[in-house]
Amino acid sequence: MVMDPDNLSVVLHSLKDLRLEQRPIPEPGPNDVLLRMHSVGICGSDVHYWQHGRIGDFVVTKPMVLGHEASGTVVKVGSAVKNLQIGDRVAIEPGVPRETDEFFKNGRYNLSPTIFFCATPPDDGNLSRYYIHSANFCYKLPANVTFEEGALIEPLSVGIHACRRAGVTLGSIVLICGAGPIGLVSLLVAKAMGASKVVITDLSQERLSMAKELGADFAIAITKGNSPQELAKNVADMLGAPPQITIECTGVESSIQTAIYATQSGGVVVLVGLGAEMATIPLVNAAVREVDIRGVFRYCNTWPMAIAMLASGKVNVKPLVTHRFPLEQALQAFETTKQGLGIKVMLKCDKNDQKP
Amino acid sequence: MVMDPDNLSVVLHSLKDLRLEQRPIPEPGPNDVLLRMHSVGICGSDVHYWQHGRIGDFVVTKPMVLGHEASGTVVKVGSAVKNLQIGDRVAIEPGVPRETDEFFKNGRYNLSPTIFFCATPPDDGNLSRYYIHSANFCYKLPANVTFEEGALIEPLSVGIHACRRAGVTLGSIVLICGAGPIGLVSLLVAKAMGASKVVITDLSQERLSMAKELGADFAIAITKGNSPQELAKNVADMLGAPPQITIECTGVESSIQTAIYATQSGGVVVLVGLGAEMATIPLVNAAVREVDIRGVFRYCNTWPMAIAMLASGKVNVKPLVTHRFPLEQALQAFETTKQGLGIKVMLKCDKNDQKP
Amino acid sequence: MVMDPDNLSVVLHSLKDLRLEQRPIPEPGPNDVLLRMHSVGICGSDVHYWQHGRIGDFVVTKPMVLGHEASGTVVKVGSAVKNLQIGDRVAIEPGVPRETDEFFKNGRYNLSPTIFFCATPPDDGNLSRYYIHSANFCYKLPANVTFEEGALIEPLSVGIHACRRAGVTLGSIVLICGAGPIGLVSLLVAKAMGASKVVITDLSQERLSMAKELGADFAIAITKGNSPQELAKNVADMLGAPPQITIECTGVESSIQTAIYATQSGGVVVLVGLGAEMATIPLVNAAVREVDIRGVFRYCNTWPMAIAMLASGKVNVKPLVTHRFPLEQALQAFETTKQGLGIKVMLKCDKNDQKP
Amino acid sequence: MVMDPDNLSVVLHSLKDLRLEQRPIPEPGPNDVLLRMHSVGICGSDVHYWQHGRIGDFVVTKPMVLGHEASGTVVKVGSAVKNLQIGDRVAIEPGVPRETDEFFKNGRYNLSPTIFFCATPPDDGNLSRYYIHSANFCYKLPANVTFEEGALIEPLSVGIHACRRAGVTLGSIVLICGAGPIGLVSLLVAKAMGASKVVITDLSQERLSMAKELGADFAIAITKGNSPQELAKNVADMLGAPPQITIECTGVESSIQTAIYATQSGGVVVLVGLGAEMATIPLVNAAVREVDIRGVFRYCNTWPMAIAMLASGKVNVKPLVTHRFPLEQALQAFETTKQGLGIKVMLKCDKNDQKP
Repeated sequence: MVMDPDNLSVVLHSLKDLRLEQRPIPEPGPNDVLLRMHSVGICGSDVHYWQHGRIGDFVVTKPMVLGHEASGTVVKVGSAVKNLQIGDRVAIEPGVPRETDEFFKNGRYNLSPTIFFCATPPDDGNLSRYYIHSANFCYKLPANVTFEEGALIEPLSVGIHACRRAGVTLGSIVLICGAGPIGLVSLLVAKAMGASKVVITDLSQERLSMAKELGADFAIAITKGNSPQELAKNVADMLGAPPQITIECTGVESSIQTAIYATQSGGVVVLVGLGAEMATIPLVNAAVREVDIRGVFRYCNTWPMAIAMLASGKVNVKPLVTHRFPLEQALQAFETTKQGLGIKVMLKCDKNDQKP
Repeated sequence: MVMDPDNLSVVLHSLKDLRLEQRPIPEPGPNDVLLRMHSVGICGSDVHYWQHGRIGDFVVTKPMVLGHEASGTVVKVGSAVKNLQIGDRVAIEPGVPRETDEFFKNGRYNLSPTIFFCATPPDDGNLSRYYIHSANFCYKLPANVTFEEGALIEPLSVGIHACRRAGVTLGSIVLICGAGPIGLVSLLVAKAMGASKVVITDLSQERLSMAKELGADFAIAITKGNSPQELAKNVADMLGAPPQITIECTGVESSIQTAIYATQSGGVVVLVGLGAEMATIPLVNAAVREVDIRGVFRYCNTWPMAIAMLASGKVNVKPLVTHRFPLEQALQAFETTKQGLGIKVMLKCDKNDQKP
Repeated sequence: MVMDPDNLSVVLHSLKDLRLEQRPIPEPGPNDVLLRMHSVGICGSDVHYWQHGRIGDFVVTKPMVLGHEASGTVVKVGSAVKNLQIGDRVAIEPGVPRETDEFFKNGRYNLSPTIFFCATPPDDGNLSRYYIHSANFCYKLPANVTFEEGALIEPLSVGIHACRRAGVTLGSIVLICGAGPIGLVSLLVAKAMGASKVVITDLSQERLSMAKELGADFAIAITKGNSPQELAKNVADMLGAPPQITIECTGVESSIQTAIYATQSGGVVVLVGLGAEMATIPLVNAAVREVDIRGVFRYCNTWPMAIAMLASGKVNVKPLVTHRFPLEQALQAFETTKQGLGIKVMLKCDKNDQKP
Repeated sequence: MVMDPDNLSVVLHSLKDLRLEQRPIPEPGPNDVLLRMHSVGICGSDVHYWQHGRIGDFVVTKPMVLGHEASGTVVKVGSAVKNLQIGDRVAIEPGVPRETDEFFKNGRYNLSPTIFFCATPPDDGNLSRYYIHSANFCYKLPANVTFEEGALIEPLSVGIHACRRAGVTLGSIVLICGAGPIGLVSLLVAKAMGASKVVITDLSQERLSMAKELGADFAIAITKGNSPQELAKNVADMLGAPPQITIECTGVESSIQTAIYATQSGGVVVLVGLGAEMATIPLVNAAVREVDIRGVFRYCNTWPMAIAMLASGKVNVKPLVTHRFPLEQALQAFETTKQGLGIKVMLKCDKNDQKP
């Protein structure tokens, strides 16, 4: 197979300095595969690095390829790889533990402090024509799952991990705060796990409409004047009972407060959205009602179940893709995401196949 | 309210001696409600008591009203009852713990050895015009849930309890052995809890067709010659991987063996069907692959989630009702069930409302 | 049996108005037992009601008997009681659910909003000569467990519930913030559940010495200048690794902050101490490291295991009792507790038996 | 450092052909360490391979070094190793997953079908002077933990995994069937996890005496005539209640039957001992009382907690070592084990340090 030497890549050089440039095509190590990238979604964190140069302690100090919601085709296979072969269409799990530490051994490898993660400084992402990844963290896609669905497994995994940590199960009543991409995938997953009623909140009526289309049973438009206690009461009134589970996807302090007040005694608040480092919350209210507060850090062990769900048709993520750009127009695609237009912007990295 | 003095009841006097007879209408105690019964399904256990006079250690030694899959309307309320009022349409949970023992305090009241249970000797069931029950174990039905759906919550609960004990979750691959009523409700529940693939087995092609209509992804017709290991291999080949969970609904020894061989290492076999007291099984195979074997005894804490599921339309149990008879034709209805015709036979106890 | 008409009781009439007065001896209902009280410990909450007239939403609006850490002897048995007989020595679980609601059915009856609870307004406690309680929530003491040990099951239960919610298990490394009575019982329970290392913090060197005597592996004296991050680092340095579990027993904001910073990724902070309604905490730090924050409200299902532990000698709570007063000197006993002297003050309610 | 070229090893050539012979000292790969072995216990499985040439599907087809209960000192470090350095004293976890498959990612790497495991054909064990192992599966021993304690972590891990799968917790009442080495370590672990009462059974009065010395609360000598139901009743009578957990360590069919009959409704039977492939058991009794049956396959994630327990002194395994032989007398040591003398035979592999 003769490889096209073109390896156009989306490289963030430093704060607000995003460039399209050629990079050499790397050679896979014994446990790696080389992938011809097909579809890569733009995530809020990509835009955040671009606009702010950092997220928390992760600072862009040297040029870094962006992108971590991705799928592609295997074009070269490392000498020790057994699970994949050339031509396999795969979805990429962007986090790969570097050490077999206690977290990895216990099945919570997402918490391993030395994990490699695409497009988290200093690790390069996969917004390129070609990209190398650990074969163990590439998952073969069935024929009836598209590349874009494969790329969307990454945001879907955030929803899966959140709903799993929340304990969503048959008949659960769920409140989701925030109807952005993560709120929407949480909605899809909660319904697929058996939630009977999902109510979703947002400032934007447009986003709420999308949520209703995707299966939300109720939608509440937040206005600035609402107090958290009032909102909590509205939610309970609307549902006929308080939600057992709240998935907070905004990171806004008042919304976290609402999440706690709204959740039934013995329930769970999952924090997905991240806001200011310090937050003032009604901790006694949570404590004496045994409302657990649980965070999520990315995800682990989600790709196989996500592929199973997509292949079975139980979850339909296709409506999430509202914009597509060829890789060559990546800067325009980033602008679109930055402006908050639509839900998910997808970059098409394969010159010869720009289909979903 | 003037009560009709008619309280026609289906009474099992002894082995094969089933009679329709009048019983006095009882007076509710302070924590009870009196119900005008509407729909009561016939269960395999009702027929078994009729035909065999016993199930295990439970022996019919004096006349007992049959029936425990039931719904009705509150017509009288005990003095201490707060959760219900006259006119409420309710589904009846047939098991009511008599003692606040350790099982009850721990949330597993189904295991309380002194529990009252409809139509388990010596406790009367509810195949009557009027019936008294603990108000705490009657659950109000929303307007969009029919009485028959309410009655079907009982078999549905067996499926819920089985799937919950099995740990069915998003993307689970599930094998169900047996496509009778319990296999079918387990199928409905497994899909509603997020199972991506369900394969179901049975001797009867007709039952398998019903299972496919209700959502089974694959169906395997068992023939007498199949060895358990071969069947296990067929299941894995069909699914592309062994099931993580097997729900055994037949109680047949060879089927239990198949269940163990078929289940993936680290998975779970749930025993719902009951066969001979002693069974010969490949225990070492199960043990060294950490395939857990878990039984289910009835259910607990299922009515609220079942009602939530029915109200939300996530589970459709309506196709399970294949026959209906007015209470006056109860003997004919029992004959129909005994002959294994259809899936669920429903008795209509309210002279003035025989609708679903 | 002729009952002594003396029923001296410790009654809180209103804020700071605590009186010793005679009350009529009540008659047990069918499910109750009448107890001759033997030993009742004074809890911080008893003192708080006395000094402040309220705890959160619970306000003393009419005279209320105090006391809820108690044991006694059955002297009269209700007509329906089966589990107890006259002469049985029992420990009393002070919370008795009034309704069979979803919380009770699910095994979390402590969260039932209508629960009866001794000495929580408006429910009377058991600091009396005689007291009536639900027989189902009185637990027979083996001969080798003293009445005082029986009374101490109540605070011990807080420690059990906290350690159980925390998931303390074999080899756990645990930080306990605060070496008051609850910190100390949490220490005892954590060690009994297999914790390998427990470090405890407090402002008071005296309390820390007691903690070391009771089995703490390390003790850290807090000084006002310590920042939460520094303290967290000190804890990790002392242990050789961050604790997997932190049990916060002070309710002080800076201590809750320390608890979060100190706990290992993937670990648990349990909130036992209660402070101001709103708290400012490093929520993002907790969330991205998946450090769960769980409150505890009293306890449920702890008496049987506590009795088992005491009977087996695995937990020694006897050193916790540092003061004893006859019931007649209750006001002096309350003064002693208010001044923070010793650990646990025990009131001896039986004129004829003031032994431990 | 000059290495002694002596690498005396205990090699099983084929059925009953056990030899002491020199092997070359291997060179560690980048992720390995070379260890100077210190103490290696002889396990029943070592003897079984020697006497039968196979265990189940694992057949000795070429010469294999025996031994997998081991500890030693790091003498050479692979180029990529970060967690260890020369001179570190370590305990060796004998199972090392070869593939990052779903089992490994989920934290249950013991179930990975391609795992490397010392002295399971065809993988060599570590009964040698020198041995190479994955650095990630060597755990540094604190100064106060001896090499023999380090070697005993392997059998202790079986007990930890069994008790963890059983859910032993504060106040648990536990039945252990069989007082051989695995029954005894299960006893030690169950007590350390908070079990209040442990009853142990065996045919041998001598073993039962040892069990009592190690902390068993009750011991029952089995005689051939006992029926499983009778034995179950005896156990309940002795304990005052049925055990919530039974750990079956014999593999004998009648003992498995006893385990099921004896266990309280809602409890757990853990199968540690392995007998015939097919077993006839009272499956209906287990199922209708929701007594779960769970196997264990070796262990995972036990070394860190075991080291924590040993370092804290919470578990004392030292009395388990009843015999010691220098490596040169390995054949005599195997004879001793074969004859069932004592509990644990330890081989001392370091010519210059034969201390515990």
